[in-house]
Amino acid sequence: MDAYEAIVAKRDRRDYLDKPIPEDVQRRILQAGRMAGSSSNTQPFRFVVLRDPKGDVRQKIGPAGPGTAPLVKAPLSIVVCLQRGSRDFDVGRTAQNMMVAAWAEGIVSCPVGLREEAIASAALGLPDDYIAAIGVAFGYPAPADPNAPVRPNSQRLPMEDLVHYETWQA
Amino acid sequence: MDAYEAIVAKRDRRDYLDKPIPEDVQRRILQAGRMAGSSSNTQPFRFVVLRDPKGDVRQKIGPAGPGTAPLVKAPLSIVVCLQRGSRDFDVGRTAQNMMVAAWAEGIVSCPVGLREEAIASAALGLPDDYIAAIGVAFGYPAPADPNAPVRPNSQRLPMEDLVHYETWQA
Repeated sequence: MDAYEAIVAKRDRRDYLDKPIPEDVQRRILQAGRMAGSSSNTQPFRFVVLRDPKGDVRQKIGPAGPGTAPLVKAPLSIVVCLQRGSRDFDVGRTAQNMMVAAWAEGIVSCPVGLREEAIASAALGLPDDYIAAIGVAFGYPAPADPNAPVRPNSQRLPMEDLVHYETWQA
Repeated sequence: MDAYEAIVAKRDRRDYLDKPIPEDVQRRILQAGRMAGSSSNTQPFRFVVLRDPKGDVRQKIGPAGPGTAPLVKAPLSIVVCLQRGSRDFDVGRTAQNMMVAAWAEGIVSCPVGLREEAIASAALGLPDDYIAAIGVAFGYPAPADPNAPVRPNSQRLPMEDLVHYETWQA
């Protein structure tokens, strides 16, 4: 898929088919994350990959936030862990790389906040110098459920409300 | 350019030709940033675009950090501003979208930290509820300068050092 097309078409989705993601596709998603640039190439992120559908960790990570269901049930979930003191900005870069690469393979995804970070860190057995910064759930898209709760739609602000030239006032 | 190829090939570069970026390409870069997902679609980011090569703001933003030279001299610089209290993660998502879209057009880029954020905010005239989260410099790649200071190379950690399965220990 064309890069620009993948980037602008990508939408966050949280409902997935119960269908495994092939090994080679998993590898490309991880490689996309691995190749993301980071501040002075410090690579402050690590990935904990949850792919065992009945794995213990899935259940333990559920209580780590109010919206973790996609992470528990997705065929592939990746928790991006960040070295303490590093910028969450770099987490966004690597996660976006993985999600756009997945989109280009027909796989949808959604970042999942881990509000109770300590619960997530304990579930994953992280060392003290890393935090569980974000979970990302991946899967083939499930057909839309007409009974699903309404989520904020994915409308974007008009370009002219988003962009200023030279200064904020312009 | 293929999405996966653009994502994995993208390297951060800070030396640009003195050659303007066409309007339609600028538009696609901004559109890539605009379409990035964000937490509950809050779209907490705004873009201040610096494209006047002799603009005042360029000079005022120089003192905002030790490595701002690319931002001052790039043919296109975009400062991503973040609503206070929102996650820097979303800044990383939108910036990465813009940088990968640019790469696919043959344009290189580099995030530039604004350590003295207050200086940057003042230069841009930001309202109190936004901060200047990151600058991103864009341009056509300059030929490598053999006398340039050596920068950390862009080697990435081996996959097996980066990725854990199910728990950190595995």
